[in-house]
Amino acid sequence: MTTTLMTQHRYVEAFVAYAGINVVLAAAAAALCAFIAPAAAGSGIPEVKAYLNGVDAHSILAPSTLFVKIFGSVLGVSAGFVVGKEGPMVHTGACIANLLGQGGSRKYGLTWNWLRYFKNDRDRRDMITCGAAAGVAAAFRAPVGGVLFALEEAASWWRSALLWRTFFTTAVVAIVLRAAIQFCATGKCGLFGEGGLIMYDVGSSKVTYSAGDVLAAILLGVIGGVLGSVYNYLVDKVVRTYSIINEKGAVFKIILVVTIALLTSCCFYFLPWIATCKPCPTNESVICPSVDESGEYKSFQCKPGYYNDLASLFLNTNDDAIRNLFSSRITKEFHISSLFIYFGTIFFLGIATYGIAVPSGLFIPVILAGAAYGRLVGRLFEPIVKLDTGLFALLGAASFLGGTMRMTVSICVILLELTNDLLLLPLVMLVLLISKSVADGFNKGVYDQILKIKGLPYMESHAEPYMRTLAARDVVSGPLVTFSGIEKVGNILHALETTGHNGFPVIDEPPFSDAAELCGLVLRSHLLVLLKGKNFTKDRLFMGRSISKRISALDFAKAGSGKGMKLEDLDINEEEKNMYVDLHPITNASPYTVLETMSLAKAAILFRQLGLRHMCVVPKSQGRPPVVGILTRHDFMPEHILGLYPGINPHKED
Amino acid sequence: MTTTLMTQHRYVEAFVAYAGINVVLAAAAAALCAFIAPAAAGSGIPEVKAYLNGVDAHSILAPSTLFVKIFGSVLGVSAGFVVGKEGPMVHTGACIANLLGQGGSRKYGLTWNWLRYFKNDRDRRDMITCGAAAGVAAAFRAPVGGVLFALEEAASWWRSALLWRTFFTTAVVAIVLRAAIQFCATGKCGLFGEGGLIMYDVGSSKVTYSAGDVLAAILLGVIGGVLGSVYNYLVDKVVRTYSIINEKGAVFKIILVVTIALLTSCCFYFLPWIATCKPCPTNESVICPSVDESGEYKSFQCKPGYYNDLASLFLNTNDDAIRNLFSSRITKEFHISSLFIYFGTIFFLGIATYGIAVPSGLFIPVILAGAAYGRLVGRLFEPIVKLDTGLFALLGAASFLGGTMRMTVSICVILLELTNDLLLLPLVMLVLLISKSVADGFNKGVYDQILKIKGLPYMESHAEPYMRTLAARDVVSGPLVTFSGIEKVGNILHALETTGHNGFPVIDEPPFSDAAELCGLVLRSHLLVLLKGKNFTKDRLFMGRSISKRISALDFAKAGSGKGMKLEDLDINEEEKNMYVDLHPITNASPYTVLETMSLAKAAILFRQLGLRHMCVVPKSQGRPPVVGILTRHDFMPEHILGLYPGINPHKED
Repeated sequence: MTTTLMTQHRYVEAFVAYAGINVVLAAAAAALCAFIAPAAAGSGIPEVKAYLNGVDAHSILAPSTLFVKIFGSVLGVSAGFVVGKEGPMVHTGACIANLLGQGGSRKYGLTWNWLRYFKNDRDRRDMITCGAAAGVAAAFRAPVGGVLFALEEAASWWRSALLWRTFFTTAVVAIVLRAAIQFCATGKCGLFGEGGLIMYDVGSSKVTYSAGDVLAAILLGVIGGVLGSVYNYLVDKVVRTYSIINEKGAVFKIILVVTIALLTSCCFYFLPWIATCKPCPTNESVICPSVDESGEYKSFQCKPGYYNDLASLFLNTNDDAIRNLFSSRITKEFHISSLFIYFGTIFFLGIATYGIAVPSGLFIPVILAGAAYGRLVGRLFEPIVKLDTGLFALLGAASFLGGTMRMTVSICVILLELTNDLLLLPLVMLVLLISKSVADGFNKGVYDQILKIKGLPYMESHAEPYMRTLAARDVVSGPLVTFSGIEKVGNILHALETTGHNGFPVIDEPPFSDAAELCGLVLRSHLLVLLKGKNFTKDRLFMGRSISKRISALDFAKAGSGKGMKLEDLDINEEEKNMYVDLHPITNASPYTVLETMSLAKAAILFRQLGLRHMCVVPKSQGRPPVVGILTRHDFMPEHILGLYPGINPHKED
Repeated sequence: MTTTLMTQHRYVEAFVAYAGINVVLAAAAAALCAFIAPAAAGSGIPEVKAYLNGVDAHSILAPSTLFVKIFGSVLGVSAGFVVGKEGPMVHTGACIANLLGQGGSRKYGLTWNWLRYFKNDRDRRDMITCGAAAGVAAAFRAPVGGVLFALEEAASWWRSALLWRTFFTTAVVAIVLRAAIQFCATGKCGLFGEGGLIMYDVGSSKVTYSAGDVLAAILLGVIGGVLGSVYNYLVDKVVRTYSIINEKGAVFKIILVVTIALLTSCCFYFLPWIATCKPCPTNESVICPSVDESGEYKSFQCKPGYYNDLASLFLNTNDDAIRNLFSSRITKEFHISSLFIYFGTIFFLGIATYGIAVPSGLFIPVILAGAAYGRLVGRLFEPIVKLDTGLFALLGAASFLGGTMRMTVSICVILLELTNDLLLLPLVMLVLLISKSVADGFNKGVYDQILKIKGLPYMESHAEPYMRTLAARDVVSGPLVTFSGIEKVGNILHALETTGHNGFPVIDEPPFSDAAELCGLVLRSHLLVLLKGKNFTKDRLFMGRSISKRISALDFAKAGSGKGMKLEDLDINEEEKNMYVDLHPITNASPYTVLETMSLAKAAILFRQLGLRHMCVVPKSQGRPPVVGILTRHDFMPEHILGLYPGINPHKED
């Protein structure tokens, strides 16, 4: 419609139509996010990363999040925001995997019995890793890139079986995609399937490069590193500001989204007026100026036979904008000023857009901005380089991706799979290495920053230096609640009510053992199931390893997040509270333990490497209670430790 | 020379010349291996894998091994064996990394001071992982494949920093290779650099495939899986047989090598006689029959204008043979019978060659055999397939690699980097998945089998099911030797002399503590350095945390394998033996411990995941000595456990 109005020179009406549609779409996306699933806002990759690190935050992967992520992302991208669909697709993949992994959704009536095999932490995590890999594989049509993304960015624990499982998943994605593309090749499915499995074929059959090219690539790497860290810094500030606004309520969220949508529309509509019209290429095979929405040569305000190069970038789908930037010099030429304006706009709009209440991926804005300055650098270095400017756009995208996200191998492979140009590999690697190294000197990767803003207790794989000066017992906090092997029901209920602990040590005492000794660890969820079964006795009796028939082993399987049994579900009367229950059948008799004098750094590594949730601290000297305390994820967080010991300098190297 | 004799129809002399040269080269390679470094025989990948798993076997990565590996591999490949250079290049990379990682070689006068930072287990392992990755990257000109190989096959522990380091290493390899190729493009370096970074450009610009192609690919996957497991089974038997022969002495080794060299020469020379001569293609651009050694169309016994297709495969370099097999139908046609003969010969010669005393990689034989049957299947399915037979050769190579080596992602990426054909990706993934799944149903990967034959104590990343029924204390073996915090020198010497233990628990006793408690763990190597320093006292005195100035902290750094201090280096007289030494300064006060009742499976996972060498088992009940035993890698080996408990069925699932 806007195009029609433009050709009729009804410019104000064209803008109103353009901005109006964008605002309506944006408001719809924001309403979905604000009212149904606030967790669906943003990229989703940090949340998936946190989940795979062992953070069981509620609603990260809930079915409602999945729903909003899919439709919110569609609406958000349609609204013309500078956002990508890649991050949301990773989150979508993880949500679907989670839905399968917890045996379907009882709430929505989608359950399968065979899915119960995934009802444990590890297999569910594997499943979600595969889901994330499938998301990347589908988003970029890059199956190997998906595997590497899951390995490099998403997963916290890696094992050989997981590699093979993610590979299997992305292979299926590749085969299905391939079949869909072949099916759609005849044009049955609209825009889907254009370009085959390789989305942007930069197509230069013989790549040779000179010292000038290498120099330009090094420069691009440095620029990417600097810009990437600036980008991360600004995103951090903006997200913190937005979260203050967003906390005020759903209406404020929607107002913020609408404001940004208007800002984006204004930029996209008014900036192309700066650009001068260029005559269409004389080549017969291109349609110029293009008549439909997805064309490469937008006429905009130009007279027939001319096109506006800035409009071709701004008023286009993201995919086509990338294709334009990656195209070779012969097929498409951009003004240097157009590239500069485009880069600046996308850079700042990308920053301003992240953090609003719509699903918003970071890949596309980063690739667009990177490709723009890459092409710019290619143009400026024209006298000394041999490579095509389209290839410099690719290198620019690589450098900015490396500078913001700090991934190396996965970005490298994704870009190669996107563009089908293996001969450029050495240069892409060089650019990525430089940009990552430069940016790492300033701050952390964008996903790590977002994790921190969201307050998710992510555990790093290495111990901090100051942890070496502390012992495990130094950070044990709070009163320790322990149970006897055969415990009074009332005591258990009281402990469950008054504490929020998820694990309790069980201690065997005389007459059931010679001296007080650690029997093991019992989980809150298992206690709830046991109490629900009401297999109580009047006296302190040892019942052995068997539990009542009223409870099956399957009841103890890990429930979906937010779906476990609640304390309120129990109905225990006063008489029962004075009875006893044998905890031995549900006690994990082999909890991982550390001596209280163990270096905190080593305890942290043990905790992290084995993916624990609870770790018992046992005394070193004899004649004391058999357990000193319990360490959980929160006890290893720098905030907790530095709160206990304000005197420690966290940046001092030992 | 052989070619000249052939053109003169002096066939017997030609054979004598051909076989003679091969035998001489083979004998030289065997002599190097047998007399200088027996560890250099074979592929080297299993050894590197074992080292990275924590097996510090002497001489695996010694400088002498490096020397023999390089020259032996050159001689072995030149001798016409069905062996590859890829495995040896991985081993070579690892050896060079080890040389750097242990601060150079004092024996050969190659030392650098800054290299001392690598003098610890973890950094040295990282270095060697990078070396292995560089080996693959250089061998296949596949930098990303190198990273993935290191991840999937070589490394036992993986962390983000390592990914980034291997990526850096292979990026440097790629850049250096690229520069060398550009430098050599003018023909200055002989055969090196031919074909650019992509070695075998299968070059089909537009790949589309039908259901028939997918069917053929599935069949190839199944064939690859079955043949791969048969290959592994036969390699296992052959290597076991050869090792009996090889154990008899160096001369027997050389005789075995010469026998196989003769067998290979006979096969390669006499089998082409079976093939019928084919007329040369009419295409002007090819030289047919070729006159030099590396041509694609060998004349052999044919009259001018004709060529022998079997000779083009047999009497060629491995690289050219692969290029021939991967070439498209239009440029090169093979008889079905020729392909069948070639496949059978390479398959069985490959099996017969592995295990003899020359450096011998497995990649090339497997790729050759796989490509041969892939092309064969492509020919047989010609009526229903759309893909080129050259691409089927590629799929065949993928299937056989997957069936023998059981890698997925790395083989996939290596093949793609070798052939620059990303559009074939979905089919390659499909083939690899099927072949690996099928083969895994029969036996283990070839490298795992070789590891087992060599008796290297490789620790799997998962615990065996029967370990769940045992506790940590059940497998503690041998008398426990402990030291007091301040121990008599004579006692230490006696313990070092009479046991082979590498770690000893240190126990603090009254009056230095209230009760006997575990102080920590002390290493044999550190004890030797401490005793060498002779910082003894007449009485049992606590000397605090400082050690004598005679010993610097650097002396305790991990020495190169086989280069640490020996017991014989000590010179301690009778008087000194009655003196005391304070062990506290060199005691690791935070050893990882497990309770004696800890499930053996969980203890094994702790040991493996954290990459430990010693683990202290502490008592659960009080009033007993503070340490029950020490577990080392050998205590977790199935042979050890099943030896202690012959009643356990290792295959029973709990």
